[in-house]
Amino acid sequence: MHKFLNSADTFLTDSLAGLAAAHPELIVDQEQRIITRSAPPRPGKVGLVSGGGSGHEPLHGGFVGFGMLDAACPGEIFTSPVPDQILAATSAVHTGAGVVHVVKNYTGDVLNFQLAAELADEAGIAVETVLVNDDVAVEDSTWTAGRRGTGATVLVEKMAGALAEREADAAQVAGLGRRVNAASRSFAVALTACTTPEAGKPGFDLPEGQMEVGVGIHGEPGRRREPTGSAREIVALSLDAILGDLEGAAGLSRGDQTIVLVNGLGGTPLGELYLVYGEVAAVLRGRGLSIARNLVGNYVTSLDMAGVCITVCRADGELIELWDAPVNTPALRWGV
Amino acid sequence: MHKFLNSADTFLTDSLAGLAAAHPELIVDQEQRIITRSAPPRPGKVGLVSGGGSGHEPLHGGFVGFGMLDAACPGEIFTSPVPDQILAATSAVHTGAGVVHVVKNYTGDVLNFQLAAELADEAGIAVETVLVNDDVAVEDSTWTAGRRGTGATVLVEKMAGALAEREADAAQVAGLGRRVNAASRSFAVALTACTTPEAGKPGFDLPEGQMEVGVGIHGEPGRRREPTGSAREIVALSLDAILGDLEGAAGLSRGDQTIVLVNGLGGTPLGELYLVYGEVAAVLRGRGLSIARNLVGNYVTSLDMAGVCITVCRADGELIELWDAPVNTPALRWGV
Repeated sequence: MHKFLNSADTFLTDSLAGLAAAHPELIVDQEQRIITRSAPPRPGKVGLVSGGGSGHEPLHGGFVGFGMLDAACPGEIFTSPVPDQILAATSAVHTGAGVVHVVKNYTGDVLNFQLAAELADEAGIAVETVLVNDDVAVEDSTWTAGRRGTGATVLVEKMAGALAEREADAAQVAGLGRRVNAASRSFAVALTACTTPEAGKPGFDLPEGQMEVGVGIHGEPGRRREPTGSAREIVALSLDAILGDLEGAAGLSRGDQTIVLVNGLGGTPLGELYLVYGEVAAVLRGRGLSIARNLVGNYVTSLDMAGVCITVCRADGELIELWDAPVNTPALRWGV
Repeated sequence: MHKFLNSADTFLTDSLAGLAAAHPELIVDQEQRIITRSAPPRPGKVGLVSGGGSGHEPLHGGFVGFGMLDAACPGEIFTSPVPDQILAATSAVHTGAGVVHVVKNYTGDVLNFQLAAELADEAGIAVETVLVNDDVAVEDSTWTAGRRGTGATVLVEKMAGALAEREADAAQVAGLGRRVNAASRSFAVALTACTTPEAGKPGFDLPEGQMEVGVGIHGEPGRRREPTGSAREIVALSLDAILGDLEGAAGLSRGDQTIVLVNGLGGTPLGELYLVYGEVAAVLRGRGLSIARNLVGNYVTSLDMAGVCITVCRADGELIELWDAPVNTPALRWGV
């Protein structure tokens, strides 16, 4: 097994201990399994909480900090966090202004965040929920009813996080998050499967020379499997799916500005991610779309999967200003 | 082949085109194959230039920008840049104050940078060279006489880059770079081989369940091959090599401060890198050493190799202050 670990049983605990050691600006509560900022929440600030299965690092713990999340709830690898855990995070960051949950659309996550929101409500904490469902590859999937949540989560957490640092209320922060999600579409292609610490071998069989088109971030199947295409072909089919959908539902049209994320799934070298970004930029330019901001790297991963997920967000001045706002987290940091 | 590319022949050109598209703050000259800052060099600033084979991204192109390099020269994959290319970079950033070359200790790099320095000298540009040779795993190797250069390159480029933004002359910048190198040691372990775009298959055979102890960043052999140990065991043997050497040559002793880099070789998930960092922090604490600053992520990679390289730098107030200084590059960004 090509994994750095002490035992599969202690993997997550050990990894979180390392995160805590590396980032004194975070508090990792191993008991409740929540990650919060070391600085106590500013009174009156809307709390922003997200979480989901581990194995997608830096999502979500790497996005805790000024300008993004107040707390993250890491589940076991590819497993939803539990309601008590989410409730603990929600309570920890509530200062009276309510809490917004950012939830990727997987059945377990949705159910557990919903339960936690109900428990929070009983405890007098108003919770708003932003459901992220940007993956155009499939309707319904192995662990999803409706579309899966993927790369747009970074955009939602960044921009809603920026707004939450200001005098915005929970409804405004959640509304902005929903607007970012509605303006964003993603599509992913995998060239290899990924290996969980527990299984110790690839989670599915993807023969050399084949690609999974529309793969999910747990390796769940996409639209089809076919011989691996060139980067140009992969970008073309991904953007056909993304832009076709954005043109219909989000009214994307020539002259619009976008924010683009070329996200590695963990096992793809940065040189390839930049190559893919170059192809994306050429296609968008050809369609009369401008890229106002971009992000190229590993942000929402699937352990060591070789693959790329492309996200396009139809942006406007407000979104770009929120994107540019200062952020100080382990995985995104600028303006500070 | 699990690679995102259009053809092996155009891989580097296409990847650099993507880097240019993603980062308008950089200029990528495809003809001369050099990467410089878009902002022209400040008159009187010492130019800082590095380069080496591609496949180690974000090294070096991702470290071009304020507070680090003025220019980078990417060679073909795992192949040294050529003297004309290095000369072009040197000339492009020379403003009268001379230029410092940061050179990883591989025979081809050393020869070609030396030739370029001689050509620059003939053209009236004084060049100082900082040789990075921090890898304690082996004396002499496949492509090296003496120790190989690896993770410390990031520390040298960061701290020498910070000094070069001030009123320092070339001798001071080079001297600081040499001091950082002398205070730094690294050791790497690989759990898989890497695949170049050209070969399309792993560059060497590392059976499942075996690790290469002391591997080089091109996959060149290290000290030995043995059954994969636990993360704790891997960290222990790496730090034994690193700290033993630092205690002897660099006078490292209890109570000292350090800067630690846990660097992924490209195919290792971030969750594992943090796990390794946690083990490193525990060992250093046990030895009475404090970690003043750390960096965990993929900074000097070997394409898609699953592996980790640990670097420890004996630090002092001056080095920590230079580490903290503002930096604005694609791969490292803070304080701006």
